[in-house]
Amino acid sequence: MERPRHQGMAKNTYMRWRLPLVCLLWEVAMIILFGVFVRFDPEADAHWEEEKREMNLTSDIENDFYFRYPSFQDVHVMIFVGFGFLMTFLKRYGFGAVGFNFLLAAFGIQWALLMQGWFHSFKSGKILIGVENLINADFCVGSVCIAFGAILGKTSPIQLLVMTLFQVTLFAVNEYILLNLLHVKDAGGSMTIHTFGAYFGLVVTRILYRPNLEQSKDKQGSVYHSDLFAMIGTLYLWMYWPSFNSAISEHGDAQHRAAINTYCSLAACVLTTMAFSSMLQKKGKLDMVHIQNATLAGGVAVGTGAEMMLTPYGSLIVGFICGIVSTVGYVYLTPFLESRLHIQDTCGIHNLHAMPGLIGGIVGAITAAAATEDVYGKEGFIKAFDFTGMYQTRTASVQGGFQAAGIVVSLLMAFAGGTLVGAILKLPVWGDAAAENCFEDDVYWEVPEDEESDAYHMHNPDKPASP
Amino acid sequence: MERPRHQGMAKNTYMRWRLPLVCLLWEVAMIILFGVFVRFDPEADAHWEEEKREMNLTSDIENDFYFRYPSFQDVHVMIFVGFGFLMTFLKRYGFGAVGFNFLLAAFGIQWALLMQGWFHSFKSGKILIGVENLINADFCVGSVCIAFGAILGKTSPIQLLVMTLFQVTLFAVNEYILLNLLHVKDAGGSMTIHTFGAYFGLVVTRILYRPNLEQSKDKQGSVYHSDLFAMIGTLYLWMYWPSFNSAISEHGDAQHRAAINTYCSLAACVLTTMAFSSMLQKKGKLDMVHIQNATLAGGVAVGTGAEMMLTPYGSLIVGFICGIVSTVGYVYLTPFLESRLHIQDTCGIHNLHAMPGLIGGIVGAITAAAATEDVYGKEGFIKAFDFTGMYQTRTASVQGGFQAAGIVVSLLMAFAGGTLVGAILKLPVWGDAAAENCFEDDVYWEVPEDEESDAYHMHNPDKPASP
Amino acid sequence: MERPRHQGMAKNTYMRWRLPLVCLLWEVAMIILFGVFVRFDPEADAHWEEEKREMNLTSDIENDFYFRYPSFQDVHVMIFVGFGFLMTFLKRYGFGAVGFNFLLAAFGIQWALLMQGWFHSFKSGKILIGVENLINADFCVGSVCIAFGAILGKTSPIQLLVMTLFQVTLFAVNEYILLNLLHVKDAGGSMTIHTFGAYFGLVVTRILYRPNLEQSKDKQGSVYHSDLFAMIGTLYLWMYWPSFNSAISEHGDAQHRAAINTYCSLAACVLTTMAFSSMLQKKGKLDMVHIQNATLAGGVAVGTGAEMMLTPYGSLIVGFICGIVSTVGYVYLTPFLESRLHIQDTCGIHNLHAMPGLIGGIVGAITAAAATEDVYGKEGFIKAFDFTGMYQTRTASVQGGFQAAGIVVSLLMAFAGGTLVGAILKLPVWGDAAAENCFEDDVYWEVPEDEESDAYHMHNPDKPASP
Repeated sequence: MERPRHQGMAKNTYMRWRLPLVCLLWEVAMIILFGVFVRFDPEADAHWEEEKREMNLTSDIENDFYFRYPSFQDVHVMIFVGFGFLMTFLKRYGFGAVGFNFLLAAFGIQWALLMQGWFHSFKSGKILIGVENLINADFCVGSVCIAFGAILGKTSPIQLLVMTLFQVTLFAVNEYILLNLLHVKDAGGSMTIHTFGAYFGLVVTRILYRPNLEQSKDKQGSVYHSDLFAMIGTLYLWMYWPSFNSAISEHGDAQHRAAINTYCSLAACVLTTMAFSSMLQKKGKLDMVHIQNATLAGGVAVGTGAEMMLTPYGSLIVGFICGIVSTVGYVYLTPFLESRLHIQDTCGIHNLHAMPGLIGGIVGAITAAAATEDVYGKEGFIKAFDFTGMYQTRTASVQGGFQAAGIVVSLLMAFAGGTLVGAILKLPVWGDAAAENCFEDDVYWEVPEDEESDAYHMHNPDKPASP
Repeated sequence: MERPRHQGMAKNTYMRWRLPLVCLLWEVAMIILFGVFVRFDPEADAHWEEEKREMNLTSDIENDFYFRYPSFQDVHVMIFVGFGFLMTFLKRYGFGAVGFNFLLAAFGIQWALLMQGWFHSFKSGKILIGVENLINADFCVGSVCIAFGAILGKTSPIQLLVMTLFQVTLFAVNEYILLNLLHVKDAGGSMTIHTFGAYFGLVVTRILYRPNLEQSKDKQGSVYHSDLFAMIGTLYLWMYWPSFNSAISEHGDAQHRAAINTYCSLAACVLTTMAFSSMLQKKGKLDMVHIQNATLAGGVAVGTGAEMMLTPYGSLIVGFICGIVSTVGYVYLTPFLESRLHIQDTCGIHNLHAMPGLIGGIVGAITAAAATEDVYGKEGFIKAFDFTGMYQTRTASVQGGFQAAGIVVSLLMAFAGGTLVGAILKLPVWGDAAAENCFEDDVYWEVPEDEESDAYHMHNPDKPASP
Repeated sequence: MERPRHQGMAKNTYMRWRLPLVCLLWEVAMIILFGVFVRFDPEADAHWEEEKREMNLTSDIENDFYFRYPSFQDVHVMIFVGFGFLMTFLKRYGFGAVGFNFLLAAFGIQWALLMQGWFHSFKSGKILIGVENLINADFCVGSVCIAFGAILGKTSPIQLLVMTLFQVTLFAVNEYILLNLLHVKDAGGSMTIHTFGAYFGLVVTRILYRPNLEQSKDKQGSVYHSDLFAMIGTLYLWMYWPSFNSAISEHGDAQHRAAINTYCSLAACVLTTMAFSSMLQKKGKLDMVHIQNATLAGGVAVGTGAEMMLTPYGSLIVGFICGIVSTVGYVYLTPFLESRLHIQDTCGIHNLHAMPGLIGGIVGAITAAAATEDVYGKEGFIKAFDFTGMYQTRTASVQGGFQAAGIVVSLLMAFAGGTLVGAILKLPVWGDAAAENCFEDDVYWEVPEDEESDAYHMHNPDKPASP
């Protein structure tokens, strides 16, 4: 029974020393770097009482913790349960989906705290972290989870850790260029998280192209209950997306508005997904793959514009379009990308993150370019786009141009970075499985052993376990 | 294998043009109506800085977003994961349970934002929406999810959308009568959500009575893992119910109190449910149907009274009674309703929502009637029942009378509305399945195809898929 | 088929009168005691407007509800979904895991509100409860859920209720000694919840030692999907642990800091767990038991120190160590404890709660002893350890000594209490199952009946159910 697999594993997939070594060395590196660099933000430091006096705050409720912690927890759930369970749809890769997502995200948030910290929270030689840093670290890791979706089932845990190391680094650089150099708004990350993460992952999976992948085709589908597990992921992503897009927006109206816009876009997206899922199938039946994924495209596509005055009906339109684009993508584009461009995209991130991310960037650019003092109010206009200091004289249309530039930069970073990282992951030292063992937990996990006799036993409690 | 089903589907259940048409047209209608009517509430609008000055607010934390957003997200989870997964208990209707609930709720919240907006948030020709509107829209849809429970497995997605359209409309009218005309308190919706939603659904299922439903009896049960999926729904409903009942209460003590009362009622309800579940069964074993449902009755039954001074022990008493009533209902009433009154109530909403909803209305009326300035304090008394303006002279006992009237109105609306909508849904154009295909996902969903060989393959990885 | 089980049940496990009687009588007792003692805290009482004036609060947002309710809900999810689903890993004990956890927690929170109320919130003859009491009640029940993990599958629901009654009582006494008499800090409960709860449970399971437990060995494992259900529990515990450790910390920096420290410790813990899970297994494969449990040890071990200035890198170090200790424990210690000391620890709570709890107590003692005014600031130092009133002169190193004493007291309480309660549970009147029926839901639950034909039917819809 185990013959073909063991053969593969003996050659490649033995993790016993490689995985522990990477995990332990990297975690030691994290400890050292945290020891040198990371301290508490004043709002999380025991000197907060003094800080309060200095900032003239009258109440502990003004601590940023109370503005952002509920959103942080929602985002946290999206990263670990949302992405983790969304990927359990494969019949025999549930452990890998949830478990490797857990591993890479746990490492990634630490490395992101450092990378983003050096760029954004570095003061007198120390990175000062508070709840907003935790959210940003989760965001950064979100882009890795997205890329993971493209290569799900085809890579070893070490490859995932290596990819995380590089992708988080590149994410931080790209984010710095967009937010600080281009002064672009992207609170929900249509560009920095989705466009960058998805195209990065697509390039990586292209480079890791496996010509014989149809050998494991029987494992690329779902079973009834694995589709239900995946719906747990889908629903948590869908429900908490308003928190995601509003989590790091400005206090007050911006956070409030971002949540409402996202809620609207997601609602519309469900209806057009259902419509096209049924319409594009001869028998007119709904396809769980679409429901699990395309319903979320509306959240991706307002990631830049949600905190702007996109308005509820504007959000509905965006969601309407994205449900269609994404579902059509699953039906026509994914097979095309695989057969013609050799892009094997396990979860279809091109449909859920890449195209909607691009749309989101464009929507953001248009919404910014169309902004007026009339709509935002004089103060609101300046606050919404942070037109202060050296950006005092920037106009809405110029801002729109910079937003568009942000899309291009994100794409370039994704292609360059994905190529580099794909090449690294192609080295034959990382322990990935042979094509016939892809999408199979048994390669890296202890899977409950006597499935057969168990199942047998469940159905016939009194008969002996081995017939 | 597919013969009897295909026969049915060829006649009835082909969705390819009907479902997409309804979804797309209705979503376009939503976009137009939102475009004409819906704008941001001042607290979500970019003019918030000016609003703050006008309202004399010193901090962004005073934005209603921070008072209500965490509760909103809990309610959101209840609607989509709570109701969705609670209904996955059927062995072969998990896709329909989670998926159709997702569809109808996504449409319903949009329509509810409009309907409730016209009644409650209409200013100078525009509906101004903020986080409280999102909660109210979720609430409104909650009543549709309840009604869905009665007809689960027996209706097409189009029927569900049609029902949602009408039920949301009627809900908004009923809510307007209760809250605005009768000036009734019902923060957690014992009357507006549960009593109305449940009796509405029961009337609909009565009208849609299927005499040959025993033809699909083998699919009306659960399997081991479907019962565990359903417990995900149960627990999220149970845990977040304190947020549900407090989500739109007045800031401060009312919200705080509503959460505590609900927590107490739910805790007591679990014990009496377990007690009666064991007691009413010959072998004394616990029944998952009761644990999944009756444990929640305590939350339903304090939906009106939770924000009043019901007190923790009062809440325990309510929960104690409802656990019993609901469990007894499952054992004795549901079979009776089906065999004698031809009410086929798939999820037993009569036991979980109808009876506890009525009890909740009565408890609210009594608690209101018994209110005194002594217990509430002079200010607290006025604030709790909003005895200001034209209601300045209303006394507690009069309020109790109006609360009771609210129950009657909700029942009348449910019966009249349910009859109307049931008659509409009975038209032979909506594509519902034949009796022998009820409770079967295969009718409307692409179900993972080669279940048998998959399952086979899982147990014997090396044997060929087809024996 | 049912022969051996029925034999056992006829003798022992018939719950029909015993379980209802206990549930109903105890719930009546709760109602009476709540009626006599429990009222609303001023912040949840309708007199809040007057309270606000007295406390000089300008806004409703200062109500403790808004500081703590989001954390409360996260803790609530951990108790009911977290612990409940973590224990569903057994192939045939999912109903018991989720259901009995639900039962004991629902009773336990009521009794905890009373017990903790008498010790901590008793004013003029009444227990005044608010959101902080709800959190503390959940905490207290958490220690019972932990102990349940040791005896999972081997006890009747009545035994669990009896254990809950006693354990909650002893928890409240121990907590009073630590927090009030020793003036110890333990916001996340490394000592009061984990050390106490785990050693209590281990002593109980030692006393209930079943020499013939290998008779049900075939049911002690997992199946593929039961491991995925368990991961739902794991992830919710992991994600919300920062809320757990910060839920009752002081407003402001302490709550903020506790969340960050816990986040860091948990992240590090995942990497060392993965490393050692792979390293300690010949084939180098990951073991779901470790991923499900040891990844959480980092949260346990900063339960005391998280609100102190443990610092992010300090937290990483603690998490690093605990992932290793816990995983090594699962591989080497659990089998040793079972074979040599006759401690049958179903979920391995010794590795997840006992050892990390001890480490947490020690880390807390060291962190307290090392505290200086330099690090905390003058005000911060006093506030962090509450060195006011009679504790005005206590120094950091003295505090460290008292913290250490807290560990010892918790251990003594656990051993003495566990012995007493174990002896009570050994009485042959509680209806526990025979050894061959352990880990089997069928003993106390109505399990979906014709599993075999169902499964058969699922795979071959058109063939008759009985071959």
